[in-house]
Amino acid sequence: MMKVEHIGIAVKDLAVSIPLFETLLQSPCYKTEQVDSEKVNTAFFRQGDTKIELVQGLTSDSVINRYIEKRGEGMHHIAFEVADIHAEMRRLTAAGFTLLNSEPKEGADDKLVCFLHPKDTNGVLIELCMSRE
Amino acid sequence: MMKVEHIGIAVKDLAVSIPLFETLLQSPCYKTEQVDSEKVNTAFFRQGDTKIELVQGLTSDSVINRYIEKRGEGMHHIAFEVADIHAEMRRLTAAGFTLLNSEPKEGADDKLVCFLHPKDTNGVLIELCMSRE
Repeated sequence: MMKVEHIGIAVKDLAVSIPLFETLLQSPCYKTEQVDSEKVNTAFFRQGDTKIELVQGLTSDSVINRYIEKRGEGMHHIAFEVADIHAEMRRLTAAGFTLLNSEPKEGADDKLVCFLHPKDTNGVLIELCMSRE
Repeated sequence: MMKVEHIGIAVKDLAVSIPLFETLLQSPCYKTEQVDSEKVNTAFFRQGDTKIELVQGLTSDSVINRYIEKRGEGMHHIAFEVADIHAEMRRLTAAGFTLLNSEPKEGADDKLVCFLHPKDTNGVLIELCMSRE
């Protein structure tokens, strides 16, 4: 893994949370993006070499809304940038980690992504992401 | 705020979690440090411009162990580096955020730190930290 690409935070309402994080971070939200495959809307803030991604579920069956129902708003995942997502998925499977998707899927920000099951990672939802550029 | 200085992860047992994260991140733990004021033991990994900090409580009344009892192991806080912690504490108080300590206190890694109450920050425990160097 190369770096922390972003930290994902589950929120109920971007209209409330975007101005809140703009004040907190003293940094403008530079992009919002709807990700239909995940049924979420996202908002991004730069912080040094990494990003904060706010994630709002768009439907009641969105994983984000189910997460908030169970645990409340808060930190949801850590995304690590990888150079070769297929190679990293093979390496981690061989090391005993469980992938939540067996093929990379489309994420926000023009990335290919894969999630690891938190049961193997001390309860932390880990996302691997690779730029498609 | 200048950058994400580290992401804190609450774990039950560093002896289990250090090798797990070394495999996951393909990065060695470069430092462990006991922080007596917080009753925790910590372990650090570099990831690009930021760090992963594993935090284990040393006593049953440690905030980390109380957190794990309630929510299980997992992401615990995001620490942002600031240039002037006193100025940032004044700015955030004026903006309506609640500080969990009214004066900066000693944290791991030779830092002065201050935490913000998660009720104001979408459930995210935010740490401000400033290097003492």
